[in-house]
Amino acid sequence: MSLRSGTTRIRVRYSEVDRMGVAHHTHHLAWFEIGRTELMREAGMTYARVEDDGVFLPVIEATCRYLAPVRYDECMTVHTGLEPARGARIRFTYRIERDVDGVVVATGSTVHAATDRHGRPRRLPPSLRELRC
Amino acid sequence: MSLRSGTTRIRVRYSEVDRMGVAHHTHHLAWFEIGRTELMREAGMTYARVEDDGVFLPVIEATCRYLAPVRYDECMTVHTGLEPARGARIRFTYRIERDVDGVVVATGSTVHAATDRHGRPRRLPPSLRELRC
Amino acid sequence: MSLRSGTTRIRVRYSEVDRMGVAHHTHHLAWFEIGRTELMREAGMTYARVEDDGVFLPVIEATCRYLAPVRYDECMTVHTGLEPARGARIRFTYRIERDVDGVVVATGSTVHAATDRHGRPRRLPPSLRELRC
Amino acid sequence: MSLRSGTTRIRVRYSEVDRMGVAHHTHHLAWFEIGRTELMREAGMTYARVEDDGVFLPVIEATCRYLAPVRYDECMTVHTGLEPARGARIRFTYRIERDVDGVVVATGSTVHAATDRHGRPRRLPPSLRELRC
Repeated sequence: MSLRSGTTRIRVRYSEVDRMGVAHHTHHLAWFEIGRTELMREAGMTYARVEDDGVFLPVIEATCRYLAPVRYDECMTVHTGLEPARGARIRFTYRIERDVDGVVVATGSTVHAATDRHGRPRRLPPSLRELRC
Repeated sequence: MSLRSGTTRIRVRYSEVDRMGVAHHTHHLAWFEIGRTELMREAGMTYARVEDDGVFLPVIEATCRYLAPVRYDECMTVHTGLEPARGARIRFTYRIERDVDGVVVATGSTVHAATDRHGRPRRLPPSLRELRC
Repeated sequence: MSLRSGTTRIRVRYSEVDRMGVAHHTHHLAWFEIGRTELMREAGMTYARVEDDGVFLPVIEATCRYLAPVRYDECMTVHTGLEPARGARIRFTYRIERDVDGVVVATGSTVHAATDRHGRPRRLPPSLRELRC
Repeated sequence: MSLRSGTTRIRVRYSEVDRMGVAHHTHHLAWFEIGRTELMREAGMTYARVEDDGVFLPVIEATCRYLAPVRYDECMTVHTGLEPARGARIRFTYRIERDVDGVVVATGSTVHAATDRHGRPRRLPPSLRELRC
């Protein structure tokens, strides 16, 4: 169950497609990143500002299941959810669907720690704890 | 237990580092890919030739745990293992270590299906089954 | 003087920013590519379909002047123009502006040849010649 | 005429190849970057340390001519030269050759300014001026 969720549309770039003619699997993680950036924006904050305030959320775990290919110039929707977190960790989940037929392209998740600029653990700031509520 | 294993050295590129000063988490999946390419080469085949023969091994699942940062210009060693597979699937495991101090940067795995050029399932060809033995 | 022109909005992704905190210079070429993809779409064709019809437009020359930095999460507008071409070559020009203040981030151009699937030169198809008129 | 020159070998990654089956044109700029990183290393400095000392060399101009395709898993050699510079600017030139047949894949150049961490112009430090001599 997600505490928050949001959607973002992305079009597959030519530079993201491999010689199988489909998006290379590394890009799904970058699309997940766009999904959580937009989810945070919808919640009234920007991740750029969070970092400017000295809080970083490095990815400490990522998983992705690739269920269907997505091709150059196709549009997708990234559905991003924010899960109840434990301690100083935040977990996002993702589902990417092709717009043309609604087929699920990929599902996945990322877990993030809260750190300072030098990678040292720190508490989640209030703004992020509010995001979780 | 891996059936086969191999190592590859990679240096972090400037273009792979983000504004935290460390390699962006998407690149670890590309480094895993280099690891399995080199493992196959050591086994006497090249993935380029496998594809030229009409067999593709798209990633259907990827996981990565990010344990320590790695910075611009640092050298890493990717340790790649090939796991006993089930059916038409192949599974590789990875451990990336920083050369300077041996610290484990990341561990992960990828699962691959065997398909033809159009994404239709096909049996693993003999050369790949031999790789597994 | 451009024969055609169009604009596209792009937001800088986290994965595109380097340790100077600004977009790494390789991505501007990918943004140019998005600009020409959208210019072609506005002209009633898609580059995906052009390739499906057996015509490829590989880049044979690219130039970019980097005039101002653009940071994570900033929005830009890519202004793309199509120049009068000579022979079987097409030339696009680009100007990227930051949305927040209108500052020009970069200008550049790409020259493309028309080839078949195997890289052999071929004539520009009528659809592309019409694009030029 | 170059003041200094050096060579670096690079193998094309799967993630760098597009649906034409050849390396996408954005990656050549990243390979140029590897070329100049290694040229500086051969000259006894590392660009990582130069930045740690507060000097940044952002690219202010890049050009590339794409002369021949290069495919997945092919090896290339990047020949990098350092040109006599004017004022606070440094200019590198590049020639990438395929190892299999010596064919020139691309030629190009980049011009760099010297700045501080905040993008403000500064003089070339002695270590870089020595690099030029």
